[in-house]
Amino acid sequence: MWLNKKFDYISTESAHKLLMQSIKFQPKRESISVSEANSRVLAENIVSDVNIPSFDVSHFDGYAVRAEDTYKASSQKPVCLRVVSQANKQEYRINPGETAPILTGNPLPAGADSVIPVERIKLEEEAVKIHHSSKPLEHVIPKGRDVKAGEKIFKTGHLFRPQDTKLLMDIKIWNVWVFKKPKVVVASIGNELTNCVEQADLKKFSSLEIMIAIMIAESGGIPIRIEIVQDEPETIRQAVRRALGEADIVTTIGGSSVGEKDYTWEAINSLNPSLKIRGIKIHPGRVTSFGLVENKPVVMLAGHVQSALVGFFTMLLPIIQLGSGITAIVQPTLEAKMGEKLAIEEFVSFKRVRFVKLNEVNGHFIAIPELGDSSLTSILVKTNGYVIINENKTIIRKGERVRVNFLPGLFPLQLLQRN
Amino acid sequence: MWLNKKFDYISTESAHKLLMQSIKFQPKRESISVSEANSRVLAENIVSDVNIPSFDVSHFDGYAVRAEDTYKASSQKPVCLRVVSQANKQEYRINPGETAPILTGNPLPAGADSVIPVERIKLEEEAVKIHHSSKPLEHVIPKGRDVKAGEKIFKTGHLFRPQDTKLLMDIKIWNVWVFKKPKVVVASIGNELTNCVEQADLKKFSSLEIMIAIMIAESGGIPIRIEIVQDEPETIRQAVRRALGEADIVTTIGGSSVGEKDYTWEAINSLNPSLKIRGIKIHPGRVTSFGLVENKPVVMLAGHVQSALVGFFTMLLPIIQLGSGITAIVQPTLEAKMGEKLAIEEFVSFKRVRFVKLNEVNGHFIAIPELGDSSLTSILVKTNGYVIINENKTIIRKGERVRVNFLPGLFPLQLLQRN
Repeated sequence: MWLNKKFDYISTESAHKLLMQSIKFQPKRESISVSEANSRVLAENIVSDVNIPSFDVSHFDGYAVRAEDTYKASSQKPVCLRVVSQANKQEYRINPGETAPILTGNPLPAGADSVIPVERIKLEEEAVKIHHSSKPLEHVIPKGRDVKAGEKIFKTGHLFRPQDTKLLMDIKIWNVWVFKKPKVVVASIGNELTNCVEQADLKKFSSLEIMIAIMIAESGGIPIRIEIVQDEPETIRQAVRRALGEADIVTTIGGSSVGEKDYTWEAINSLNPSLKIRGIKIHPGRVTSFGLVENKPVVMLAGHVQSALVGFFTMLLPIIQLGSGITAIVQPTLEAKMGEKLAIEEFVSFKRVRFVKLNEVNGHFIAIPELGDSSLTSILVKTNGYVIINENKTIIRKGERVRVNFLPGLFPLQLLQRN
Repeated sequence: MWLNKKFDYISTESAHKLLMQSIKFQPKRESISVSEANSRVLAENIVSDVNIPSFDVSHFDGYAVRAEDTYKASSQKPVCLRVVSQANKQEYRINPGETAPILTGNPLPAGADSVIPVERIKLEEEAVKIHHSSKPLEHVIPKGRDVKAGEKIFKTGHLFRPQDTKLLMDIKIWNVWVFKKPKVVVASIGNELTNCVEQADLKKFSSLEIMIAIMIAESGGIPIRIEIVQDEPETIRQAVRRALGEADIVTTIGGSSVGEKDYTWEAINSLNPSLKIRGIKIHPGRVTSFGLVENKPVVMLAGHVQSALVGFFTMLLPIIQLGSGITAIVQPTLEAKMGEKLAIEEFVSFKRVRFVKLNEVNGHFIAIPELGDSSLTSILVKTNGYVIINENKTIIRKGERVRVNFLPGLFPLQLLQRN
């Protein structure tokens, strides 16, 4: 019976292109306080109403001067300027031949156009001696140097970082429109599973579901966990249909291969997807499938941990990013040398993923592969990155340069943790 | 008056060594549910009590066999085995000449030691024809292959990732001891500052404090914000003393240079630190200072945003990591080519930091420097990494290879966002 089922593999590039062309999200917006904006995605364009700084300000503690008063100064013939006090007040003015003490960040007094740092002057009774000529705006941050009034600061789709939050506050924006995070229902499929700790001795605890849920949250989605779905086509169909009612994205885990009890594809296919992808040319992860049902993406991940992880970063992650309203993102990679020869004989017409442990040796990175069946979680625990081996390549030599992808959903600091 | 104050710069390497030798944290532990363990730091060693898998299990949907029954099979002379049903039950046994259907992940029936994948057999009435000989444990995940009972899984100091959480649950660990996150009081110093939005037109809003607080949270600390501290030595002294009462780490922002109203060093120095660092040889960020007061670290950051950021990753971040109980971490860097010539004439005996925007061009990274005064936030908004230029180096050629550090506290996906 199961022999009737089969895959119709397409390349990961074709799959990505189809997904990006076909999925049309219309993410909703919400207005939040800028102090909550970190790691959220901007849903408006931001233009500054103000100049930062709003005046010409001093970059040093020192003396504000009229640059032209100093043009003739030299170490032989210092210029002597009369110190006027209270000059830190903005409405204050200095006249030709005058100077005034000024602190870093304070506006220049009227008349002044330059600052002499304190260590370059010689202070005498009510006067300073200046030995170097100064140019207009020297040691001055001119009005609008950081941000100009009318300048476009951020565009829709920008992902906020801590420094972005600071700049928003500096231009006195206290609330921003951001896209709502996409809701992702995670449906584990399998009679053998439970998500009750109390039943973990009788059944298999759905730990993969929790791993995927954490990765969804780290990627900017809101994971929604539901009851375990039993291995029965109509049950799966109804669970997915219900999930589509509340979610922006649905992901299933398990039951997506062609075995006797694998009904996930059949169930989702019966919901008449307008786009179908039945398997992708990457191993592990080849069973990863997709259906666009009622214009909502349904990603079918494998039940084996490594396969599910590959399906996550190949298909689910880009869809979550799309649903977040985020503009194009490049996944950073790291160049390393392979620490051991790696020979790969299976699925040679596919891309192949192998997990590696990155070690830094004298400032260079060495990638040590950890090999083992796609059901083994320990491989992922021992590693911090992965290499994607191109189609038809069967050997990576020891010392060969490879690009290492970071395991997804991980903070940079965690990548190279030493055990 | 301010000319009496001065720095006593030491190298960043010396500073780091002194800090790591002198600071003795005794992080407290707390027991949490393993579902909350992601990004927390383990405070115990974890040894597995169980084998994963707990039985020899099938890696494929197929037929469980006794390997010796198949030794004589060939494409010319297939071996015929009698199918016995109900064989998915663990207590079931197959006898010589028998086989039983089996699903991926299910335990092998007693007697069986190998699995033939379904696509390799020919099913006939109550029998299967096998054309290839099979070896013991072929297509089988042996008991304990993922995790062995008695195996050390994680050591104290391990930072949990999603896959680590999964493995803990697989070995049926539902609660773990983790280190409490270090509390970091952030004290902004300056009469010109306010942290009330309502006063942001009269005073400067303390946006840098919020940026640093977010970065502390992203680095695994708990930021605690307090009232703005006025520029007065005794006020600063009392605020820091109070902060030391509730915090594991204190960081000040501003007032740490040698200007007329810079009292931070003087105030903290009056608390009799057992270790003092007055300035570090890196620019921007050179005013970053340190005092170990009552065995608690007090980091003094500059008030300019770029200087504060450099002080953060040079001094505050390693201290937060130390206080988190985390074991050694390497900051990942990325190799890039400089996109423009960069000439640096100031502070040549110091390390110099320049912020760069990383662009990926044909799979290679190009670093474009964005230059501007250390008070400019816009430079940090336009960039996603930084290079550290060694002492006495004054020129980086266009095309020269550089190591780019990621801006701290940022998720890898954010690093290469395209604007």
